[in-house]
Amino acid sequence: MIYKYDRVVKYYETDRMGVVHHSNYIRWFEEARVEFMRDIGLPYSHMEDEGIMVPVVTVECKYKNPVTFDDEVIVNTRVRKFNGIVIELEYEVVRADDGSIVVTGASSHCFVDAKTFKPLNLKRERADMYDKFLKAMED
Amino acid sequence: MIYKYDRVVKYYETDRMGVVHHSNYIRWFEEARVEFMRDIGLPYSHMEDEGIMVPVVTVECKYKNPVTFDDEVIVNTRVRKFNGIVIELEYEVVRADDGSIVVTGASSHCFVDAKTFKPLNLKRERADMYDKFLKAMED
Amino acid sequence: MIYKYDRVVKYYETDRMGVVHHSNYIRWFEEARVEFMRDIGLPYSHMEDEGIMVPVVTVECKYKNPVTFDDEVIVNTRVRKFNGIVIELEYEVVRADDGSIVVTGASSHCFVDAKTFKPLNLKRERADMYDKFLKAMED
Amino acid sequence: MIYKYDRVVKYYETDRMGVVHHSNYIRWFEEARVEFMRDIGLPYSHMEDEGIMVPVVTVECKYKNPVTFDDEVIVNTRVRKFNGIVIELEYEVVRADDGSIVVTGASSHCFVDAKTFKPLNLKRERADMYDKFLKAMED
Repeated sequence: MIYKYDRVVKYYETDRMGVVHHSNYIRWFEEARVEFMRDIGLPYSHMEDEGIMVPVVTVECKYKNPVTFDDEVIVNTRVRKFNGIVIELEYEVVRADDGSIVVTGASSHCFVDAKTFKPLNLKRERADMYDKFLKAMED
Repeated sequence: MIYKYDRVVKYYETDRMGVVHHSNYIRWFEEARVEFMRDIGLPYSHMEDEGIMVPVVTVECKYKNPVTFDDEVIVNTRVRKFNGIVIELEYEVVRADDGSIVVTGASSHCFVDAKTFKPLNLKRERADMYDKFLKAMED
Repeated sequence: MIYKYDRVVKYYETDRMGVVHHSNYIRWFEEARVEFMRDIGLPYSHMEDEGIMVPVVTVECKYKNPVTFDDEVIVNTRVRKFNGIVIELEYEVVRADDGSIVVTGASSHCFVDAKTFKPLNLKRERADMYDKFLKAMED
Repeated sequence: MIYKYDRVVKYYETDRMGVVHHSNYIRWFEEARVEFMRDIGLPYSHMEDEGIMVPVVTVECKYKNPVTFDDEVIVNTRVRKFNGIVIELEYEVVRADDGSIVVTGASSHCFVDAKTFKPLNLKRERADMYDKFLKAMED
Protein backbone atom coordinates (compact mmCIF):
# COMPACT_ATOMS: atom_id res chain seq x y z
CA MET A 1 0.00 0.00 0.00
CA ILE A 2 1.07 3.55 -0.69
CA TYR A 3 0.76 6.09 2.10
CA LYS A 4 0.26 9.70 1.12
CA TYR A 5 1.52 12.80 2.90
CA ASP A 6 0.73 16.35 1.75
CA ARG A 7 3.20 19.15 2.14
CA VAL A 8 3.58 22.80 1.13
CA VAL A 9 7.12 24.11 0.57
CA LYS A 10 8.28 26.59 3.22
CA TYR A 11 10.21 29.71 2.31
CA TYR A 12 13.14 28.76 4.56
CA GLU A 13 13.49 25.47 2.69
CA THR A 14 14.60 27.23 -0.49
CA ASP A 15 18.18 28.26 -1.20
CA ARG A 16 19.69 30.89 -3.43
CA MET A 17 19.39 28.58 -6.45
CA GLY A 18 15.72 29.55 -6.09
CA VAL A 19 14.51 26.03 -5.27
CA VAL A 20 14.28 23.66 -2.30
CA HIS A 21 17.72 22.84 -0.88
CA HIS A 22 18.47 19.18 -1.59
CA SER A 23 18.98 18.29 2.09
CA ASN A 24 15.39 19.15 2.92
CA TYR A 25 13.92 16.26 0.96
CA ILE A 26 15.62 13.94 3.47
CA ARG A 27 13.60 15.75 6.15
CA TRP A 28 10.39 15.36 4.16
CA PHE A 29 11.07 11.62 3.95
CA GLU A 30 11.20 11.65 7.75
CA GLU A 31 7.95 13.59 7.96
CA ALA A 32 6.30 11.13 5.57
CA ARG A 33 7.66 8.20 7.61
CA VAL A 34 6.23 9.67 10.79
CA GLU A 35 2.80 10.01 9.16
CA PHE A 36 3.06 6.52 7.67
CA MET A 37 3.67 5.12 11.16
CA ARG A 38 0.76 7.10 12.54
CA ASP A 39 -1.41 5.74 9.72
CA ILE A 40 -0.60 2.11 10.56
CA GLY A 41 -1.31 2.69 14.26
CA LEU A 42 2.28 2.98 15.46
CA PRO A 43 2.94 6.70 16.05
CA TYR A 44 6.69 7.17 16.32
CA SER A 45 6.35 9.26 19.49
CA HIS A 46 4.49 6.30 20.99
CA MET A 47 7.29 3.90 19.97
CA GLU A 48 9.85 6.16 21.65
CA ASP A 49 7.64 6.22 24.76
CA GLU A 50 7.76 2.41 24.65
CA GLY A 51 11.56 2.53 24.59
CA ILE A 52 12.10 1.77 20.91
CA MET A 53 13.98 3.98 18.48
CA VAL A 54 14.12 3.53 14.71
CA PRO A 55 17.37 5.18 13.59
CA VAL A 56 18.23 5.68 9.95
CA VAL A 57 20.84 3.26 8.59
CA THR A 58 20.97 4.42 4.99
CA VAL A 59 19.28 7.10 2.95
CA GLU A 60 19.36 7.98 -0.73
CA CYS A 61 17.69 10.50 -2.98
CA LYS A 62 17.50 11.13 -6.73
CA TYR A 63 16.63 14.66 -7.77
CA LYS A 64 14.40 14.96 -10.85
CA ASN A 65 12.64 18.33 -10.96
CA PRO A 66 12.92 21.08 -8.40
CA VAL A 67 10.05 22.69 -6.51
CA THR A 68 10.03 26.03 -4.79
CA PHE A 69 8.26 28.13 -2.16
CA ASP A 70 4.53 27.49 -1.81
CA ASP A 71 4.49 24.56 -4.23
CA GLU A 72 2.32 21.74 -2.98
CA VAL A 73 3.75 18.24 -3.04
CA ILE A 74 2.66 14.75 -2.08
CA VAL A 75 5.11 12.25 -0.60
CA ASN A 76 4.14 8.68 -1.47
CA THR A 77 5.64 6.15 0.94
CA ARG A 78 5.79 2.37 0.53
CA VAL A 79 7.37 -0.43 2.57
CA ARG A 80 9.87 -2.18 0.31
CA LYS A 81 11.16 -4.69 2.84
CA PHE A 82 10.43 -5.64 6.43
CA ASN A 83 11.58 -8.61 8.48
CA GLY A 84 11.31 -7.40 12.08
CA ILE A 85 14.97 -6.41 12.22
CA VAL A 86 15.20 -4.04 9.28
CA ILE A 87 12.65 -1.92 7.48
CA GLU A 88 13.17 -0.34 4.07
CA LEU A 89 10.95 2.43 2.78
CA GLU A 90 10.61 3.97 -0.67
CA TYR A 91 9.53 7.53 -1.25
CA GLU A 92 8.30 9.41 -4.27
CA VAL A 93 7.69 13.13 -4.03
CA VAL A 94 5.32 14.41 -6.72
CA ARG A 95 3.83 17.81 -7.47
CA ALA A 96 0.24 18.03 -6.29
CA ASP A 97 -0.84 19.96 -9.39
CA ASP A 98 0.35 17.71 -12.22
CA GLY A 99 1.73 14.59 -10.52
CA SER A 100 5.18 15.06 -12.03
CA ILE A 101 8.04 13.51 -10.08
CA VAL A 102 10.17 15.84 -7.95
CA VAL A 103 12.48 13.34 -6.23
CA THR A 104 12.57 9.63 -5.47
CA GLY A 105 14.35 8.09 -2.53
CA ALA A 106 14.67 5.34 0.01
CA SER A 107 15.72 4.80 3.58
CA SER A 108 16.52 1.75 5.68
CA HIS A 109 16.21 1.53 9.43
CA CYS A 110 16.76 -0.84 12.30
CA PHE A 111 14.93 -1.03 15.61
CA VAL A 112 16.93 -0.38 18.76
CA ASP A 113 16.38 -0.28 22.49
CA ALA A 114 16.24 3.42 23.40
CA LYS A 115 18.38 2.87 26.49
CA THR A 116 21.07 0.48 25.27
CA PHE A 117 20.94 1.32 21.52
CA LYS A 118 21.11 -2.47 20.97
CA PRO A 119 19.19 -3.89 17.97
CA LEU A 120 15.76 -5.36 18.59
CA ASN A 121 13.95 -8.09 16.70
CA LEU A 122 10.36 -6.90 16.65
CA LYS A 123 9.06 -10.33 15.66
CA ARG A 124 10.33 -11.83 18.90
CA GLU A 125 10.02 -8.88 21.22
CA ARG A 126 7.07 -6.84 20.00
CA ALA A 127 4.83 -9.08 17.90
CA ASP A 128 2.08 -6.44 18.06
CA MET A 129 4.30 -3.94 16.28
CA TYR A 130 5.69 -6.59 13.95
CA ASP A 131 2.20 -7.41 12.69
CA LYS A 132 1.39 -3.81 11.89
CA PHE A 133 4.52 -3.21 9.82
CA LEU A 134 4.03 -6.55 8.06
CA LYS A 135 0.47 -5.68 7.19
CA ALA A 136 1.60 -2.29 5.83
CA MET A 137 4.02 -4.05 3.50
CA GLU A 138 1.59 -6.70 2.31
CA ASP A 139 -1.52 -4.59 1.77
CA MET B 1 35.54 42.07 26.79
CA ILE B 2 34.42 41.23 23.27
CA TYR B 3 34.74 37.64 22.11
CA LYS B 4 35.21 37.04 18.40
CA TYR B 5 33.94 34.12 16.33
CA ASP B 6 34.70 33.69 12.62
CA ARG B 7 32.21 32.17 10.26
CA VAL B 8 31.80 31.56 6.53
CA VAL B 9 28.24 31.50 5.15
CA LYS B 10 27.10 28.06 4.01
CA TYR B 11 25.13 27.56 0.81
CA TYR B 12 22.23 25.89 2.66
CA GLU B 13 21.89 28.96 4.87
CA THR B 14 20.73 31.11 1.97
CA ASP B 15 17.14 31.32 0.77
CA ARG B 16 15.58 32.23 -2.53
CA MET B 17 15.85 35.95 -1.68
CA GLY B 18 19.54 35.23 -2.46
CA VAL B 19 20.77 35.96 1.06
CA VAL B 20 21.05 34.24 4.44
CA HIS B 21 17.64 33.28 5.83
CA HIS B 22 16.90 35.42 8.87
CA SER B 23 16.44 32.43 11.21
CA ASN B 24 20.04 31.36 10.73
CA TYR B 25 21.51 34.35 12.53
CA ILE B 26 19.85 33.02 15.69
CA ARG B 27 21.89 29.84 15.14
CA TRP B 28 25.07 31.85 14.64
CA PHE B 29 24.41 33.58 17.95
CA GLU B 30 24.33 30.11 19.51
CA GLU B 31 27.57 29.13 17.80
CA ALA B 32 29.22 32.34 19.03
CA ARG B 33 27.89 31.70 22.54
CA VAL B 34 29.34 28.20 22.51
CA GLU B 35 32.75 29.56 21.48
CA PHE B 36 32.50 32.37 24.06
CA MET B 37 31.94 29.77 26.77
CA ARG B 38 34.86 27.71 25.52
CA ASP B 39 37.01 30.86 25.57
CA ILE B 40 36.22 31.58 29.21
CA GLY B 41 36.96 28.00 30.22
CA LEU B 42 33.38 26.76 30.49
CA PRO B 43 32.71 24.67 27.37
CA TYR B 44 28.96 24.21 27.09
CA SER B 45 29.31 20.47 26.51
CA HIS B 46 31.22 20.35 29.81
CA MET B 47 28.43 22.24 31.58
CA GLU B 48 25.87 19.76 30.27
CA ASP B 49 28.10 16.93 31.47
CA GLU B 50 28.03 18.60 34.90
CA GLY B 51 24.23 18.57 34.80
CA ILE B 52 23.64 22.22 33.97
CA MET B 53 21.73 23.52 30.97
CA VAL B 54 21.54 27.11 29.83
CA PRO B 55 18.27 27.43 27.89
CA VAL B 56 17.36 30.54 25.93
CA VAL B 57 14.75 32.75 27.61
CA THR B 58 14.57 35.56 25.06
CA VAL B 59 16.22 36.30 21.75
CA GLU B 60 16.10 39.29 19.44
CA CYS B 61 17.73 40.30 16.17
CA LYS B 62 17.88 43.46 14.06
CA TYR B 63 18.72 42.93 10.39
CA LYS B 64 20.90 45.64 8.82
CA ASN B 65 22.65 44.35 5.69
CA PRO B 66 22.36 40.86 4.25
CA VAL B 67 25.24 38.51 3.53
CA THR B 68 25.26 35.55 1.21
CA PHE B 69 27.05 32.29 0.38
CA ASP B 70 30.78 32.29 1.05
CA ASP B 71 30.82 35.70 2.72
CA GLU B 72 33.04 35.74 5.78
CA VAL B 73 31.62 37.24 8.95
CA ILE B 74 32.73 37.82 12.52
CA VAL B 75 30.33 37.49 15.43
CA ASN B 76 31.31 39.78 18.31
CA THR B 77 29.85 38.63 21.63
CA ARG B 78 29.71 40.56 24.89
CA VAL B 79 28.17 39.86 28.30
CA ARG B 80 25.67 42.64 28.99
CA LYS B 81 24.42 41.37 32.33
CA PHE B 82 25.19 38.50 34.68
CA ASN B 83 24.10 37.86 38.23
CA GLY B 84 24.39 34.10 38.65
CA ILE B 85 20.74 33.51 37.84
CA VAL B 86 20.45 35.20 34.46
CA ILE B 87 22.98 35.98 31.74
CA GLU B 88 22.40 38.43 28.90
CA LEU B 89 24.59 38.46 25.83
CA GLU B 90 24.87 40.96 23.01
CA TYR B 91 25.92 40.01 19.50
CA GLU B 92 27.10 42.00 16.53
CA VAL B 93 27.69 40.23 13.23
CA VAL B 94 30.03 42.16 10.93
CA ARG B 95 31.49 41.45 7.51
CA ALA B 96 35.09 40.31 7.76
CA ASP B 97 36.12 42.34 4.71
CA ASP B 98 34.91 45.83 5.60
CA GLY B 99 33.59 45.57 9.16
CA SER B 100 30.11 46.74 8.14
CA ILE B 101 27.28 45.57 10.38
CA VAL B 102 25.16 42.65 9.18
CA VAL B 103 22.88 42.13 12.19
CA THR B 104 22.84 42.96 15.87
CA GLY B 105 21.10 40.91 18.52
CA ALA B 106 20.82 39.74 22.08
CA SER B 107 19.81 36.70 24.06
CA SER B 108 19.05 36.06 27.72
CA HIS B 109 19.41 32.73 29.48
CA CYS B 110 18.89 31.12 32.84
CA PHE B 111 20.77 28.21 34.35
CA VAL B 112 18.81 25.05 35.08
CA ASP B 113 19.38 21.62 36.54
CA ALA B 114 19.51 19.26 33.55
CA LYS B 115 17.40 16.66 35.37
CA THR B 116 14.72 18.74 37.06
CA PHE B 117 14.80 21.80 34.74
CA LYS B 118 14.68 23.88 37.97
CA PRO B 119 16.56 27.21 38.00
CA LEU B 120 20.01 27.29 39.55
CA ASN B 121 21.82 30.16 41.23
CA LEU B 122 25.41 29.74 40.06
CA LYS B 123 26.72 32.08 42.76
CA ARG B 124 25.49 29.75 45.49
CA GLU B 125 25.80 26.40 43.79
CA ARG B 126 28.71 26.70 41.37
CA ALA B 127 30.95 29.55 42.52
CA ASP B 128 33.68 28.33 40.15
CA MET B 129 31.44 28.87 37.15
CA TYR B 130 30.03 32.09 38.60
CA ASP B 131 33.52 33.60 38.81
CA LYS B 132 34.30 32.83 35.18
CA PHE B 133 31.14 34.44 33.81
CA LEU B 134 31.62 37.44 36.11
CA LYS B 135 35.17 37.90 34.92
CA ALA B 136 34.01 37.71 31.28
CA MET B 137 31.58 40.56 31.93
CA GLU B 138 34.00 42.74 33.83
CA ASP B 139 37.08 42.40 31.66
CA MET C 1 -8.28 39.95 14.04
CA ILE C 2 -6.25 36.92 15.05
CA TYR C 3 -5.14 34.53 12.33
CA LYS C 4 -4.62 30.88 13.31
CA TYR C 5 -2.09 28.44 11.92
CA ASP C 6 -1.87 24.78 13.00
CA ARG C 7 1.41 22.98 13.21
CA VAL C 8 2.76 19.61 14.40
CA VAL C 9 6.35 19.53 15.68
CA LYS C 10 8.76 17.66 13.40
CA TYR C 11 11.41 15.31 14.76
CA TYR C 12 14.23 17.26 13.10
CA GLU C 13 13.10 20.42 14.89
CA THR C 14 14.09 19.01 18.29
CA ASP C 15 17.59 19.19 19.74
CA ARG C 16 19.42 17.14 22.31
CA MET C 17 17.78 19.13 25.12
CA GLY C 18 14.79 17.01 24.08
CA VAL C 19 12.67 19.96 22.91
CA VAL C 20 12.26 22.21 19.88
CA HIS C 21 15.44 24.17 19.13
CA HIS C 22 14.79 27.84 19.85
CA SER C 23 15.69 28.97 16.31
CA ASN C 24 12.82 27.00 14.83
CA TYR C 25 10.12 29.19 16.36
CA ILE C 26 11.43 32.01 14.16
CA ARG C 27 10.68 29.74 11.19
CA TRP C 28 7.20 28.98 12.51
CA PHE C 29 6.56 32.73 12.72
CA GLU C 30 7.43 32.87 9.03
CA GLU C 31 5.11 29.98 8.24
CA ALA C 32 2.30 31.68 10.18
CA ARG C 33 3.02 34.95 8.36
CA VAL C 34 2.80 33.21 4.99
CA GLU C 35 -0.58 31.71 5.93
CA PHE C 36 -1.78 35.04 7.32
CA MET C 37 -0.98 36.68 3.99
CA ARG C 38 -2.75 33.91 2.11
CA ASP C 39 -5.77 34.37 4.40
CA ILE C 40 -6.04 38.09 3.62
CA GLY C 41 -5.78 37.45 -0.12
CA LEU C 42 -2.13 38.41 -0.59
CA PRO C 43 -0.19 35.13 -0.90
CA TYR C 44 3.48 35.92 -0.41
CA SER C 45 4.49 33.96 -3.52
CA HIS C 46 2.08 36.19 -5.44
CA MET C 47 3.67 39.33 -3.98
CA GLU C 48 7.11 38.12 -5.06
CA ASP C 49 5.70 37.44 -8.52
CA GLU C 50 4.53 41.06 -8.52
CA GLY C 51 8.05 42.19 -7.71
CA ILE C 52 7.60 42.96 -4.04
CA MET C 53 9.58 41.41 -1.21
CA VAL C 54 8.83 41.76 2.48
CA PRO C 55 12.15 41.23 4.28
CA VAL C 56 12.40 40.90 8.05
CA VAL C 57 13.75 44.01 9.80
CA THR C 58 13.55 42.83 13.41
CA VAL C 59 12.47 39.66 15.16
CA GLU C 60 12.10 38.74 18.81
CA CYS C 61 10.94 35.72 20.77
CA LYS C 62 10.24 34.95 24.42
CA TYR C 63 10.39 31.28 25.39
CA LYS C 64 7.82 30.17 27.99
CA ASN C 65 7.27 26.41 27.86
CA PRO C 66 8.96 24.00 25.49
CA VAL C 67 7.21 21.59 23.15
CA THR C 68 8.63 18.50 21.56
CA PHE C 69 8.19 16.02 18.69
CA ASP C 70 4.60 15.41 17.61
CA ASP C 71 3.13 18.08 19.88
CA GLU C 72 0.42 20.06 18.14
CA VAL C 73 0.60 23.83 18.36
CA ILE C 74 -1.37 26.80 17.07
CA VAL C 75 0.36 30.01 16.01
CA ASN C 76 -1.88 33.06 16.57
CA THR C 77 -0.84 36.01 14.42
CA ARG C 78 -2.02 39.61 14.74
CA VAL C 79 -1.08 42.85 12.94
CA ARG C 80 0.20 45.25 15.61
CA LYS C 81 1.07 48.13 13.30
CA PHE C 82 0.78 48.91 9.60
CA ASN C 83 1.26 52.16 7.74
CA GLY C 84 2.11 51.07 4.20
CA ILE C 85 5.84 51.34 4.79
CA VAL C 86 6.28 49.07 7.80
CA ILE C 87 4.25 46.15 9.12
CA GLU C 88 4.60 44.72 12.63
CA LEU C 89 3.20 41.32 13.53
CA GLU C 90 2.72 39.65 16.90
CA TYR C 91 2.79 35.90 17.37
CA GLU C 92 1.66 33.64 20.16
CA VAL C 93 2.36 29.92 19.92
CA VAL C 94 0.07 27.84 22.13
CA ARG C 95 -0.34 24.12 22.70
CA ALA C 96 -3.36 22.77 20.84
CA ASP C 97 -4.33 20.48 23.73
CA ASP C 98 -4.53 22.90 26.66
CA GLY C 99 -3.94 26.36 25.16
CA SER C 100 -0.90 27.01 27.35
CA ILE C 101 1.61 29.47 25.94
CA VAL C 102 4.77 28.05 24.33
CA VAL C 103 6.42 31.22 23.03
CA THR C 104 5.43 34.78 22.18
CA GLY C 105 7.16 36.92 19.59
CA ALA C 106 7.04 39.70 17.08
CA SER C 107 8.54 40.69 13.76
CA SER C 108 8.68 43.90 11.76
CA HIS C 109 9.07 44.14 8.02
CA CYS C 110 9.36 46.66 5.25
CA PHE C 111 8.25 46.36 1.63
CA VAL C 112 10.93 46.50 -1.04
CA ASP C 113 11.18 46.38 -4.80
CA ALA C 114 12.45 42.87 -5.61
CA LYS C 115 14.85 44.22 -8.23
CA THR C 116 16.31 47.30 -6.58
CA PHE C 117 15.73 46.34 -2.92
CA LYS C 118 14.52 49.94 -2.46
CA PRO C 119 11.69 50.55 0.06
CA LEU C 120 8.17 50.82 -1.24
CA ASN C 121 5.22 52.77 0.16
CA LEU C 122 2.27 50.43 -0.46
CA LYS C 123 -0.24 53.22 0.15
CA ARG C 124 1.09 55.18 -2.82
CA GLU C 125 2.23 52.39 -5.08
CA ARG C 126 -0.08 49.46 -4.40
CA ALA C 127 -3.29 50.75 -2.86
CA ASP C 128 -4.94 47.36 -3.48
CA MET C 129 -2.41 45.64 -1.21
CA TYR C 130 -2.45 48.51 1.27
CA ASP C 131 -6.19 48.11 1.79
CA LYS C 132 -5.91 44.40 2.52
CA PHE C 133 -3.24 44.80 5.18
CA LEU C 134 -5.12 47.73 6.71
CA LYS C 135 -8.31 45.70 6.90
CA ALA C 136 -6.40 42.82 8.54
CA MET C 137 -5.21 45.19 11.26
CA GLU C 138 -8.55 46.87 11.84
CA ASP C 139 -10.83 43.85 11.87
CA MET D 1 43.68 12.79 -3.82
CA ILE D 2 41.68 13.11 -0.63
CA TYR D 3 40.56 16.58 0.44
CA LYS D 4 40.06 17.17 4.15
CA TYR D 5 37.54 19.44 5.82
CA ASP D 6 37.36 19.96 9.61
CA ARG D 7 34.08 20.52 11.38
CA VAL D 8 32.77 20.82 14.93
CA VAL D 9 29.19 19.66 15.58
CA LYS D 10 26.79 22.49 16.36
CA TYR D 11 24.17 22.21 19.09
CA TYR D 12 21.31 22.89 16.67
CA GLU D 13 22.43 19.96 14.52
CA THR D 14 21.49 17.45 17.21
CA ASP D 15 18.01 16.03 17.70
CA ARG D 16 16.25 14.54 20.67
CA MET D 17 17.87 11.16 20.00
CA GLY D 18 20.89 13.02 21.46
CA VAL D 19 22.95 12.86 18.28
CA VAL D 20 23.32 14.69 14.95
CA HIS D 21 20.12 14.53 12.90
CA HIS D 22 20.74 12.36 9.85
CA SER D 23 19.80 15.09 7.36
CA ASN D 24 22.68 17.28 8.50
CA TYR D 25 25.36 14.99 7.12
CA ILE D 26 24.03 15.82 3.65
CA ARG D 27 24.75 19.47 4.48
CA TRP D 28 28.25 18.61 5.67
CA PHE D 29 28.87 16.88 2.35
CA GLU D 30 27.96 20.17 0.69
CA GLU D 31 30.29 22.10 2.98
CA ALA D 32 33.10 19.66 2.20
CA ARG D 33 32.36 19.94 -1.52
CA VAL D 34 32.55 23.73 -1.34
CA GLU D 35 35.95 23.52 0.38
CA PHE D 36 37.14 20.89 -2.08
CA MET D 37 36.30 23.24 -4.94
CA ARG D 38 38.07 26.10 -3.21
CA ASP D 39 41.09 23.84 -2.72
CA ILE D 40 41.34 23.03 -6.42
CA GLY D 41 41.04 26.69 -7.40
CA LEU D 42 37.38 26.68 -8.41
CA PRO D 43 35.45 28.33 -5.56
CA TYR D 44 31.78 27.52 -6.02
CA SER D 45 30.76 31.15 -5.52
CA HIS D 46 33.13 32.00 -8.37
CA MET D 47 31.54 29.35 -10.60
CA GLU D 48 28.09 30.81 -9.91
CA ASP D 49 29.47 34.25 -10.76
CA GLU D 50 30.63 32.76 -14.05
CA GLY D 51 27.11 31.53 -14.73
CA ILE D 52 27.59 27.85 -13.90
CA MET D 53 25.65 25.91 -11.30
CA VAL D 54 26.44 22.42 -10.09
CA PRO D 55 23.14 20.98 -8.82
CA VAL D 56 22.93 17.68 -6.96
CA VAL D 57 21.57 14.79 -9.05
CA THR D 58 21.84 12.00 -6.47
CA VAL D 59 22.95 11.73 -2.90
CA GLU D 60 23.36 8.79 -0.53
CA CYS D 61 24.56 8.28 3.01
CA LYS D 62 25.30 5.27 5.23
CA TYR D 63 25.18 5.92 8.97
CA LYS D 64 27.78 4.03 11.03
CA ASN D 65 28.36 5.71 14.40
CA PRO D 66 26.67 8.86 15.63
CA VAL D 67 28.42 12.00 16.81
CA THR D 68 27.00 14.73 19.00
CA PHE D 69 27.41 18.35 20.04
CA ASP D 70 30.99 19.63 20.12
CA ASP D 71 32.47 16.47 18.60
CA GLU D 72 35.14 17.26 16.06
CA VAL D 73 34.95 15.48 12.71
CA ILE D 74 36.87 15.42 9.46
CA VAL D 75 35.12 15.04 6.11
CA ASN D 76 37.34 13.29 3.56
CA THR D 77 36.27 14.02 -0.01
CA ARG D 78 37.42 12.26 -3.16
CA VAL D 79 36.45 12.53 -6.84
CA ARG D 80 35.18 9.10 -7.91
CA LYS D 81 34.28 9.99 -11.48
CA PHE D 82 34.52 13.04 -13.71
CA ASN D 83 33.99 13.40 -17.43
CA GLY D 84 33.12 17.06 -17.91
CA ILE D 85 29.39 16.37 -17.87
CA VAL D 86 29.00 14.58 -14.55
CA ILE D 87 31.06 14.58 -11.38
CA GLU D 88 30.76 12.00 -8.62
CA LEU D 89 32.19 12.59 -5.18
CA GLU D 90 32.71 10.23 -2.26
CA TYR D 91 32.68 11.35 1.35
CA GLU D 92 33.83 9.76 4.56
CA VAL D 93 33.16 11.52 7.84
CA VAL D 94 35.49 10.38 10.63
CA ARG D 95 35.93 11.41 14.24
CA ALA D 96 38.93 13.69 14.67
CA ASP D 97 39.95 12.03 17.94
CA ASP D 98 40.16 8.36 16.94
CA GLY D 99 39.54 8.29 13.18
CA SER D 100 36.51 6.01 13.53
CA ILE D 101 33.97 6.24 10.75
CA VAL D 102 30.82 8.26 11.40
CA VAL D 103 29.13 8.11 8.00
CA THR D 104 30.08 7.43 4.40
CA GLY D 105 28.33 8.88 1.40
CA ALA D 106 28.38 10.00 -2.19
CA SER D 107 26.85 12.60 -4.45
CA SER D 108 26.66 13.09 -8.19
CA HIS D 109 26.25 16.39 -9.96
CA CYS D 110 25.90 17.87 -13.39
CA PHE D 111 26.99 21.29 -14.63
CA VAL D 112 24.28 23.64 -15.85
CA ASP D 113 23.98 27.11 -17.28
CA ALA D 114 22.73 29.30 -14.42
CA LYS D 115 20.29 31.11 -16.71
CA THR D 116 18.84 28.32 -18.81
CA PHE D 117 19.46 25.39 -16.42
CA LYS D 118 20.65 23.49 -19.54
CA PRO D 119 23.48 20.96 -19.06
CA LEU D 120 27.01 22.06 -19.89
CA ASN D 121 29.97 20.01 -21.08
CA LEU D 122 32.91 21.55 -19.26
CA LYS D 123 35.42 19.87 -21.57
CA ARG D 124 34.05 21.73 -24.56
CA GLU D 125 32.90 24.95 -22.93
CA ARG D 126 35.23 25.57 -20.02
CA ALA D 127 38.46 23.64 -20.57
CA ASP D 128 40.11 25.61 -17.76
CA MET D 129 37.62 24.25 -15.25
CA TYR D 130 37.67 20.81 -16.82
CA ASP D 131 41.41 20.54 -16.28
CA LYS D 132 41.16 21.40 -12.61
CA PHE D 133 38.52 18.80 -11.84
CA LEU D 134 40.40 16.20 -13.89
CA LYS D 135 43.60 16.90 -12.00
CA ALA D 136 41.73 16.59 -8.67
CA MET D 137 40.56 13.12 -9.69
CA GLU D 138 43.90 11.91 -10.99
CA ASP D 139 46.19 13.17 -8.25
